[in-house]
Amino acid sequence: MNFDIGGEQERMPAPLIKAFGVLKKAAAQVNATYGMDQKVADAISQASDEVISGKLLDHFPLVVFQTGSGTQTNMNVNEVISNRAIEIMGGELGSKTPVHPNDHVNMSQSSNDTFPTAMHVSAVVEINHTLLPALHQLHDALEAKRAEFESIIKIGRTHLQDATPLTLGQEFSGYVQQVANGIKRVEDVIPRLSMLAQGGTAVGTGLNTRKGFDVKVADAISEITGLKFQTAPNKFEALAAHDAIVEASGAMNTVAVSLMKIANDIRYLASGPRCGLGELSLPENEPGSSIMPGKVNPTQCEALTMVAAQVIGNNTTISVAGSYGQFELNVFKPVLIKNLLQSIRLLGDGSRSFTKNCVVGIEANKEKINQILNESLMLVTCLNSRMGYDNAAKCAKKAHKEGTTLKEATLSLGLLSSEEFDELVRPELMLGPN
Amino acid sequence: MNFDIGGEQERMPAPLIKAFGVLKKAAAQVNATYGMDQKVADAISQASDEVISGKLLDHFPLVVFQTGSGTQTNMNVNEVISNRAIEIMGGELGSKTPVHPNDHVNMSQSSNDTFPTAMHVSAVVEINHTLLPALHQLHDALEAKRAEFESIIKIGRTHLQDATPLTLGQEFSGYVQQVANGIKRVEDVIPRLSMLAQGGTAVGTGLNTRKGFDVKVADAISEITGLKFQTAPNKFEALAAHDAIVEASGAMNTVAVSLMKIANDIRYLASGPRCGLGELSLPENEPGSSIMPGKVNPTQCEALTMVAAQVIGNNTTISVAGSYGQFELNVFKPVLIKNLLQSIRLLGDGSRSFTKNCVVGIEANKEKINQILNESLMLVTCLNSRMGYDNAAKCAKKAHKEGTTLKEATLSLGLLSSEEFDELVRPELMLGPN
Amino acid sequence: MNFDIGGEQERMPAPLIKAFGVLKKAAAQVNATYGMDQKVADAISQASDEVISGKLLDHFPLVVFQTGSGTQTNMNVNEVISNRAIEIMGGELGSKTPVHPNDHVNMSQSSNDTFPTAMHVSAVVEINHTLLPALHQLHDALEAKRAEFESIIKIGRTHLQDATPLTLGQEFSGYVQQVANGIKRVEDVIPRLSMLAQGGTAVGTGLNTRKGFDVKVADAISEITGLKFQTAPNKFEALAAHDAIVEASGAMNTVAVSLMKIANDIRYLASGPRCGLGELSLPENEPGSSIMPGKVNPTQCEALTMVAAQVIGNNTTISVAGSYGQFELNVFKPVLIKNLLQSIRLLGDGSRSFTKNCVVGIEANKEKINQILNESLMLVTCLNSRMGYDNAAKCAKKAHKEGTTLKEATLSLGLLSSEEFDELVRPELMLGPN
Amino acid sequence: MNFDIGGEQERMPAPLIKAFGVLKKAAAQVNATYGMDQKVADAISQASDEVISGKLLDHFPLVVFQTGSGTQTNMNVNEVISNRAIEIMGGELGSKTPVHPNDHVNMSQSSNDTFPTAMHVSAVVEINHTLLPALHQLHDALEAKRAEFESIIKIGRTHLQDATPLTLGQEFSGYVQQVANGIKRVEDVIPRLSMLAQGGTAVGTGLNTRKGFDVKVADAISEITGLKFQTAPNKFEALAAHDAIVEASGAMNTVAVSLMKIANDIRYLASGPRCGLGELSLPENEPGSSIMPGKVNPTQCEALTMVAAQVIGNNTTISVAGSYGQFELNVFKPVLIKNLLQSIRLLGDGSRSFTKNCVVGIEANKEKINQILNESLMLVTCLNSRMGYDNAAKCAKKAHKEGTTLKEATLSLGLLSSEEFDELVRPELMLGPN
Repeated sequence: MNFDIGGEQERMPAPLIKAFGVLKKAAAQVNATYGMDQKVADAISQASDEVISGKLLDHFPLVVFQTGSGTQTNMNVNEVISNRAIEIMGGELGSKTPVHPNDHVNMSQSSNDTFPTAMHVSAVVEINHTLLPALHQLHDALEAKRAEFESIIKIGRTHLQDATPLTLGQEFSGYVQQVANGIKRVEDVIPRLSMLAQGGTAVGTGLNTRKGFDVKVADAISEITGLKFQTAPNKFEALAAHDAIVEASGAMNTVAVSLMKIANDIRYLASGPRCGLGELSLPENEPGSSIMPGKVNPTQCEALTMVAAQVIGNNTTISVAGSYGQFELNVFKPVLIKNLLQSIRLLGDGSRSFTKNCVVGIEANKEKINQILNESLMLVTCLNSRMGYDNAAKCAKKAHKEGTTLKEATLSLGLLSSEEFDELVRPELMLGPN
Repeated sequence: MNFDIGGEQERMPAPLIKAFGVLKKAAAQVNATYGMDQKVADAISQASDEVISGKLLDHFPLVVFQTGSGTQTNMNVNEVISNRAIEIMGGELGSKTPVHPNDHVNMSQSSNDTFPTAMHVSAVVEINHTLLPALHQLHDALEAKRAEFESIIKIGRTHLQDATPLTLGQEFSGYVQQVANGIKRVEDVIPRLSMLAQGGTAVGTGLNTRKGFDVKVADAISEITGLKFQTAPNKFEALAAHDAIVEASGAMNTVAVSLMKIANDIRYLASGPRCGLGELSLPENEPGSSIMPGKVNPTQCEALTMVAAQVIGNNTTISVAGSYGQFELNVFKPVLIKNLLQSIRLLGDGSRSFTKNCVVGIEANKEKINQILNESLMLVTCLNSRMGYDNAAKCAKKAHKEGTTLKEATLSLGLLSSEEFDELVRPELMLGPN
Repeated sequence: MNFDIGGEQERMPAPLIKAFGVLKKAAAQVNATYGMDQKVADAISQASDEVISGKLLDHFPLVVFQTGSGTQTNMNVNEVISNRAIEIMGGELGSKTPVHPNDHVNMSQSSNDTFPTAMHVSAVVEINHTLLPALHQLHDALEAKRAEFESIIKIGRTHLQDATPLTLGQEFSGYVQQVANGIKRVEDVIPRLSMLAQGGTAVGTGLNTRKGFDVKVADAISEITGLKFQTAPNKFEALAAHDAIVEASGAMNTVAVSLMKIANDIRYLASGPRCGLGELSLPENEPGSSIMPGKVNPTQCEALTMVAAQVIGNNTTISVAGSYGQFELNVFKPVLIKNLLQSIRLLGDGSRSFTKNCVVGIEANKEKINQILNESLMLVTCLNSRMGYDNAAKCAKKAHKEGTTLKEATLSLGLLSSEEFDELVRPELMLGPN
Repeated sequence: MNFDIGGEQERMPAPLIKAFGVLKKAAAQVNATYGMDQKVADAISQASDEVISGKLLDHFPLVVFQTGSGTQTNMNVNEVISNRAIEIMGGELGSKTPVHPNDHVNMSQSSNDTFPTAMHVSAVVEINHTLLPALHQLHDALEAKRAEFESIIKIGRTHLQDATPLTLGQEFSGYVQQVANGIKRVEDVIPRLSMLAQGGTAVGTGLNTRKGFDVKVADAISEITGLKFQTAPNKFEALAAHDAIVEASGAMNTVAVSLMKIANDIRYLASGPRCGLGELSLPENEPGSSIMPGKVNPTQCEALTMVAAQVIGNNTTISVAGSYGQFELNVFKPVLIKNLLQSIRLLGDGSRSFTKNCVVGIEANKEKINQILNESLMLVTCLNSRMGYDNAAKCAKKAHKEGTTLKEATLSLGLLSSEEFDELVRPELMLGPN
């Protein structure tokens, strides 16, 4: 083996191998319509199903850092499927007959178009099956919290400084919007990811394929996966550039940035138990210290923010690799898809874990939230209309200087009675426009 | 001044200042409908027009690296506009009457919602006025070249190695597709960039604005700019996160990656004049060496690839800055918009320069292209059907070993006559599927 | 002008132009030793001094995004200096005599070796004159705070959760160490940055120079700048790769990461005034709200963290640009040096501003720090030895459940007297190993 | 398990687990000097040896995306080692006696100091054992080629255009210098990576350790690994920041950039066989096409450049993660070390593979190199001195226009005889300064 680089952890990702199964099945079906022996096609199809199921994954030991067109992996797939198909048809393993790896499994194909096809298929499948459902779960869990928290009024914070109040529900509504946008962003990259290179063969011209092969393969892949694929309008672009991968990674990057923000906010809001902000309580997933009650490390936030950092860096790798296409071929294909699939998977798994083990169990510490809000001096603006700006400022300054609450200061200045203060200073009137 | 950081080259970008002009004009118009003195509103409007025109740019010396909400710049704008409006109304400069910077120019606004509004407005304006026209020009120029080159057959190159032929037009069609996709990618980010934070005021609740203010301002901005804007559906997200900026930067990054590929291909194809590939000639913009004819440095490619590197790095800056939102406010606003506007401008200017000074003048060196093609051994596959694989291989090997052309080898082996060879070996039959 | 890209804000950075002045002066002096007319050399030298002083900066309008070897800028320099030298010698401007831009000012030089020489000289000068002094100031200011705060005991925070105590001085000692390491990191890149390409001429061979020219120029540059430079041991590397720039950017990136951490900590510790952690008070540089006392936005932290984001992204640009060298020349020179110089300048200016306007004025809110510490339950471990783990845990749990202090809980359980508690629970015993 | 994120491919890297073995052995030895039962210490030591050997790796199924301090992995290690030590001592598995995971294996330690210690130890070990030897091999192989090629004169290329000649050995000397510098860069980060956090325990104060524990552990680790480690001068920095990891990643990034340049050059120089530059021949590692002789895909270059892209992106991940330390702890530890170890491993493996399977087998195509050189018009400058600039230019222009060699043009102009031409035009005189 000429690519002893990175070892087991650097193996070609499973979703890519499975997508090769999809492609080889589709190609066999289409090739049958062009005259390939139907029995051979059926055997390839059946063997491909086993690749799709993941059953044969152990037969794909190759690493990412190999030929930049993924040639060895395409050959690996051809051989595994042909051998399994031979077995199915009762032939002799390794005999290349009645199912030949090149003449049958790879018929009308080239590494240069199969690998990018498998790249796109695997990315679209993973986005649909792993990432989007997880983002929807996260969205819904955050939305449920938003609703749950919609009447809890809390201090706002800008520049990390006390600001005018909002509800905890409003605060969470921002997160809901971020994830909703993220879902849309991810969905928006699917159209261009759904364009398949298959049919371009070695340089994009489609030499050695039949007219219509490309369209038929895309249709067959759509049927097998239940997801909509189309043949790429320009095969030269589809082999030589991987801008659709870069674009998709950009969406992953944006989602990562959103999740970083959300997870950071939540862990700061849950900081404490005594010496932090303490507005939220997170579920205690790991056994806490028996002697140190109330201390819950925000471990799910930590896992998710590490995911975000990984995805942001993967985007750099993908941008660099994507920029290096040369003439008719970009030969950074394996590293491109490895990073994109990792980003998709980590964002999906990370979101699911975060939802299940953190978001759904977040509790608002209403008492603490309310106490902080009342300690704040930000409500002083409520006094303006009644006592004028100068007197209001006097109350705030006295409270600030003496470390008392605004109410205490106002009362001690004799400017209002306790009842008057409570009537005027109502944060619930500060939650929206007039 | 507390932010002596970076000096003149780090000033707030002009398009942002102009967008502030748009916003302040829109706000004044809307505030008039809520009761602001129409004369004051008109004066603000007129002063804002001067900001929009760029006439007052010298009054905005502040740098990017200041308060992370851009507060100083919002105040700078308020003061410049109020003073100019005072002047227009015949008042005394600096008197804050009859036009007060806060009470009038900043009415119902906060730095926290004006700055992000100006960010989005400036980005959308620059995309529409600078970037998209330039990408369209580039697209059209490449498409013209594609058409011009559509019957020039050349060697394909994969892994930088000789591959089956394609036309130069086909090769350029890949670039055309990349730029067409790039245009679509940039257009796709406009919807979310068109959502405006205005109306959220300090923390997103819209405290101190009127109901409907947000919608009206967005409408007014649409009218002033002639571009479609909408109020953001969630103001908390619009202040605390800048995912739309990150997303837009992702599109810029993808376009940069495309342009890197295209410019690299072109300069390698034009390498020479004697010792490179020499398939293309680029226009000679700078005076060449008088003694060294034919040597044309691909300076436009160099400028464009430097632009691409800049934009790819800006995307990292934007991703980091975007990830750092805290509670109700992201305080990396100036650095976010500075980098995005730079990416937009550089991609626009770079594409325009590249189109005008390079693409339109690219010439195909037909003779050299043809000579290289004929020297290639890749056409050997044409011989298969007639003489069988083994004989074909024999011809290729002989040619390779002896450094002759395929034709010479074939003829010297006595396998075909010259006429037969010419009839069989026809690259024009290798340009597509059967 | 063929490079209408980016406008004024994208001009070649001033320190690079000044470094060209240094180089041209050095070259003239050395060329005089090889026979150039001493009067011409002196005039060039004098004109170069004016470039070094910055007086002629307006004559350098060229932007970064030009030829990737910086040819236009080298020519720009040659022309400005020759014209000024002609003037000095009483000749006619534009006459190219008695001082010819190529034959004299550029004698024994090529853009390909002058530009990278100026890159290294400018970077080393800026590091020495701008960045290192600023980092030393920051270091010393943090160290002063460390000393000032060394006996203030505060709660520690890990995972944002309450942890065992440390002193505020210990906390700051971490920052001091980060900056001290940063200074060392920056110093460590100087040796390789001090290697100069001069003498390599067009491809690295040194054709058209004299033997020893390279060494003499490096010596002359050392003398002019008062900084130690050497001729690069391999000129092919020095023209074709810019790994030393990438390495230097890596140091900037690390410093940026350090500053991001420090500034983030400080702004969170200063969050409040009522609803945050409130352990630190930052100086109030901008006029605060007259009605909202105590609210001080951490604007210097914001500027500095924006600087950090910029530098981290610049590092990506530099890595991409550095990776793209081709054969005998890397043609991303201008974008490389522009980004490195920006990183150096921003880190220098940002650190200086942060030191002066923030660090030196940081005050510890001792009362608040102490109050938080005492509210914490983390001191419970002090009770172990006396009452056993189970009883200690009982105290902590009771306090947690009832929202009381540990002392209150312990006393109410009758396990200790107030005096006993105070004697046992002494955070000052928890600040180091036994 | 609460962190179902990424699956098997995201497991904690083996070198980190092994480094934990080193640390636990060292801690046991030191704890014995402070009174831990020597038999227990010996058993822990023996069990740790098995972790170091890799024998127990299957017992470490945890993934990277977990608690950000790596707590679960520290516990995992404690349990595996205590159980194995119990086994060694004849106790009952799971009984926690006579070797307790916390009381013995983790004695005087905290996840917060063990994990960063294992980070540094693993990085230093991998750099010494994997990366540096591989870089030395690459350096030596390139140096051997440099020597082999030192008298082969070839055309130089700047801006991808023909330039003055150099030797192929000179060209390779640039690569040699890059790798030599890379080795130095990697070595330069070792000092700060060798500083160990051990002894800081939870927040950096060292609470619950003994005085001197930190120094002794560092010494023990030095002895076990045979590499020099020291205790960190400031434990607060060592827990809360990971600047040394960021710095080390910067060195990896720079090496990646170098390798990208070298591998790119080599594959372009080897492009062909007929239609590229064709100056080099690479070893044919994979079976080529039997019908298409001479076509050798530069697969090792492709693998190596994919490695470079990965490492450049890892640097972004590490920079982001490193920037996010909070108060007394940076909780991005697992993702930081995972990326750094991957960069180290990939650069090491990639360099070794590239050396063995590519560099050592590179052959110069002398004939082609010479032919290209002679076709070039760049040698025209040799004619200047004899016939004057104008006549020389006339020769070059004629040759360029008519597509002949310079010699043919010169002779046909009757300006020189063939012998005179050959005597004058001697590229060997153009290889250095006069």
